[in-house]
Amino acid sequence: MRSRIVTIGREFGSGGRTIGRLLAQKRGIPCYDREIIEEISEKSGFAGKYIEENGEYGQLGLIGSLFTNRFYYQGQSNEDIIWMYQRELILELAERESCVIVGRCADYILREREDVLRVFIHADLDFRSRRIVDVYGEREAAPQQRLKEKDRRRAAYYQFYTDMKWGDARNYHICLDASALGIERCAELLSGL
Amino acid sequence: MRSRIVTIGREFGSGGRTIGRLLAQKRGIPCYDREIIEEISEKSGFAGKYIEENGEYGQLGLIGSLFTNRFYYQGQSNEDIIWMYQRELILELAERESCVIVGRCADYILREREDVLRVFIHADLDFRSRRIVDVYGEREAAPQQRLKEKDRRRAAYYQFYTDMKWGDARNYHICLDASALGIERCAELLSGL
Repeated sequence: MRSRIVTIGREFGSGGRTIGRLLAQKRGIPCYDREIIEEISEKSGFAGKYIEENGEYGQLGLIGSLFTNRFYYQGQSNEDIIWMYQRELILELAERESCVIVGRCADYILREREDVLRVFIHADLDFRSRRIVDVYGEREAAPQQRLKEKDRRRAAYYQFYTDMKWGDARNYHICLDASALGIERCAELLSGL
Repeated sequence: MRSRIVTIGREFGSGGRTIGRLLAQKRGIPCYDREIIEEISEKSGFAGKYIEENGEYGQLGLIGSLFTNRFYYQGQSNEDIIWMYQRELILELAERESCVIVGRCADYILREREDVLRVFIHADLDFRSRRIVDVYGEREAAPQQRLKEKDRRRAAYYQFYTDMKWGDARNYHICLDASALGIERCAELLSGL
């Protein structure tokens, strides 16, 4: 296969976004990540920060659900509305051009297409802890705890909207451990597929 | 990384064994798969067929456990004894030489070593159904059902002895979909790692 579209699911801090950018550079195609948030913000009126928090992260458990700002309009929560905007935009991007799309369940949204390579990037906790402090400049007393919570919320979101298990190898064409293989190497491996 | 040992976990019928053989050929190192069964049979006295059935497949649910031939000797089932023989042999192989080891939780057994590349191979049900009929010559009215049962029993075995989830991308360095990428291509991708 030579894929037209590459979707990259990734653990928080694993380097998935960077791999997406490198891969897109190598192929000379655009990479969509934060651009998706900005476009949806413009169309929907929701603030970028709000989309970031609610367009990829689920709430954990009953307590989380009760204390979140969840408003319903005609049976739809804000999360549902953001999901629909994201879904529509991702379908449109895939139709329009060859590209890399990072996160936002794009693998699931584009599952019917045959020209999509579905990728999942993960890495061990040490590697990710260092990255969120060094690369993203986060000042965290307990980065490992923060990573685990982020993972759990991404998994909950993915499960809720796709009814599949986040990080199960069988949902993807290729899964890579960026801490073992290296970020550059991952981008190289993917560039030929 | 350039790995000395490669472990290959795989779905039944996915081509994992063939990928292991091709990879070993490319690298000029041995590939252990059925050889493990034969060696354990010799050492333990259990029949090869019995080891094949109980050295990688768990029983499903209470009914399965009740009606299986599970004998205990000093608190150990036959499965536990086979597990210990397999574990010892796999540790010994890894110590002795560069090689490819297919199945039998080798990824978990060798988890402390830094020179091991942990691989998981999977494929869609159509691809695997065709393979078990064409390649292995199985005559099955319902190959898909047989595949699902095999998968569930492998997953149960893996979970019981490793306490990890079989097929979760995060347990492996690289996971590949052989039906999307092709068997030859998978072996090629791995040969550089």
